[in-house]
Amino acid sequence: MQHDSIRAISWQKDSLVLLDQRYLPGSEQYITCTEIDCVIDAIRNMVVRGAPAIGITAAYGIVLMVKSLIQTHAGKWRQFVDAALDDLSRARPTAINLNWAIAQMRPLIDEPGESDILSRLAARARAIHEQDIQANMRMGEFGASLITSGVRVLTHCNAGALATGGYGTALGVIRSLHSNGMLQQVYADETRPWLQGARLTAWELLRDDIPVSLIADSAAAYLMKQGRIDWVIVGSDRIAANGDVANKIGTYSAAVNARYHGVKFMVVAPTTTIDMDTACGDDIPIEFRDSTELVKVAGQQVAATGSDAWNPVFDVTPADLVDAIVTERGVILQPDREKMLEHMSV
Amino acid sequence: MQHDSIRAISWQKDSLVLLDQRYLPGSEQYITCTEIDCVIDAIRNMVVRGAPAIGITAAYGIVLMVKSLIQTHAGKWRQFVDAALDDLSRARPTAINLNWAIAQMRPLIDEPGESDILSRLAARARAIHEQDIQANMRMGEFGASLITSGVRVLTHCNAGALATGGYGTALGVIRSLHSNGMLQQVYADETRPWLQGARLTAWELLRDDIPVSLIADSAAAYLMKQGRIDWVIVGSDRIAANGDVANKIGTYSAAVNARYHGVKFMVVAPTTTIDMDTACGDDIPIEFRDSTELVKVAGQQVAATGSDAWNPVFDVTPADLVDAIVTERGVILQPDREKMLEHMSV
Repeated sequence: MQHDSIRAISWQKDSLVLLDQRYLPGSEQYITCTEIDCVIDAIRNMVVRGAPAIGITAAYGIVLMVKSLIQTHAGKWRQFVDAALDDLSRARPTAINLNWAIAQMRPLIDEPGESDILSRLAARARAIHEQDIQANMRMGEFGASLITSGVRVLTHCNAGALATGGYGTALGVIRSLHSNGMLQQVYADETRPWLQGARLTAWELLRDDIPVSLIADSAAAYLMKQGRIDWVIVGSDRIAANGDVANKIGTYSAAVNARYHGVKFMVVAPTTTIDMDTACGDDIPIEFRDSTELVKVAGQQVAATGSDAWNPVFDVTPADLVDAIVTERGVILQPDREKMLEHMSV
Repeated sequence: MQHDSIRAISWQKDSLVLLDQRYLPGSEQYITCTEIDCVIDAIRNMVVRGAPAIGITAAYGIVLMVKSLIQTHAGKWRQFVDAALDDLSRARPTAINLNWAIAQMRPLIDEPGESDILSRLAARARAIHEQDIQANMRMGEFGASLITSGVRVLTHCNAGALATGGYGTALGVIRSLHSNGMLQQVYADETRPWLQGARLTAWELLRDDIPVSLIADSAAAYLMKQGRIDWVIVGSDRIAANGDVANKIGTYSAAVNARYHGVKFMVVAPTTTIDMDTACGDDIPIEFRDSTELVKVAGQQVAATGSDAWNPVFDVTPADLVDAIVTERGVILQPDREKMLEHMSV
């Protein structure tokens, strides 16, 4: 596949190798994890980020976790599984894919027989990884099919190859639009505080030769006012049963502005991101991170010493501001509880 | 006046002393200008910024300009005035106060007699400076009078003592609310790309003992959704004859979100910021600054090498999103062309 060269997660010789996204775009450094603690730290500290990528990383992490438990506790290792999985599930709160991956791996751990458990777990993790890439490619086609003429797109945060097994969700649709010749322009919000747009999305799209312009997050409204955006396309960290969408802080602001300016709003996420056990957006746990993310920039103190900050790193966009949710199963237009239920029952 | 300790501009022994706002809050450095070129550089490079502060700086700069012209060109210095004033007026395009100050000083230059021209110009510049501070204090009272119970305020950029002769416009209202005991909470947008909120507003309010919380610009909508903002209060760089408001990029996004969430929106600016010769917001020249302001943060490259950026540093909020414009003459509710004309004719 053209314009799709980036893979941030790989399983090599029984180790998990992660592209350390904290150092992009300045340098491409990799972390090799052979223990679950390394994996938990990598998720918590954002070596790896993006809901699908966190899920895949967790799946591989569970292989390492069980391997360690067997080595350390021999015949009675199964009694340590619950606590270890709990530790993993707490690494970050908002992305549901983390819990989804644990739920996928858990039955295999519980199956009887030990001789080939690690190879079975590793095979399952690799399948989760590969299925994510395939899902992204399908979503790319479904999302692009909604757009029938040249389009100017705004995206927020990084919902790309770096945030997934590969190809990306929102950036997967952008890749497909680019392949179809339908992509006129991509604008990327820089995405404060962690600057995923400036650091990751710009790097990823430039690397794959897809033109992109950075903007300050707060400039998006002014760009829309000038009629220069047709679609906002974003990913998600968790979608509730009624279609409410949790995603990077600032997504909600983009959605309000999109509606105000008659710009369409598309959310692209695999069904692994949909949480039918969470009734609505108000029930999604929103992660707050340290105020230093705002007080310091690129490691340097920018705000006055003693500055307080309010730093939620996700927000919730209500379903009624969403024109389309795209999953690997298809498209949900004007999502609501009923359509979500139908989509997930197929 | 309590909670009003900051003065960024002063005239000392025939020199203009400017607090260099590029280095705040890290260090308090001052630049002393004795030549107009120093003043133009200071405006262009944002040693001093904020529309009223730019106007005051320009007025003092004209004293230095005329002094130099007399020294260099003796009897024929008046023929160099137009070109020199043109250079000054081009230092930054959006803030109308720069041209206003030039228009105020120009008649004094043209008056006959040379013996006391410098003292007359200096007296006029000092009067412009002092009148700005007095205007801000009146605006503080007028703005605060619109608010009759404890209030949670969001402000964008820095429209404070640092952006004016002293006391501030938007932060002047916030200072007055604080003095009245009506201020429950101030949230300050960090204000990318130049981070005036994080660097200047947080510093200024903390220095004057007024509690403030920083937020990412894009988090404002989510804060409003939670019912935690009552008023957005901002300054302006130019207000058109129909009440359209140019201000720091992101102001328009805040105004759209304010309207969507039923939050009131107040613009605080002296009549020197109102440009009745500009019919509407579309006619206001919007300054674009270099993409490095987005690609680099705090001097460090954050975006991928080769990233393109779109970096308008102001936007226009249409009058119909503005609940109140506050000047030193009073309050214009739901501004429009007719009310603006009436206000300016008083």
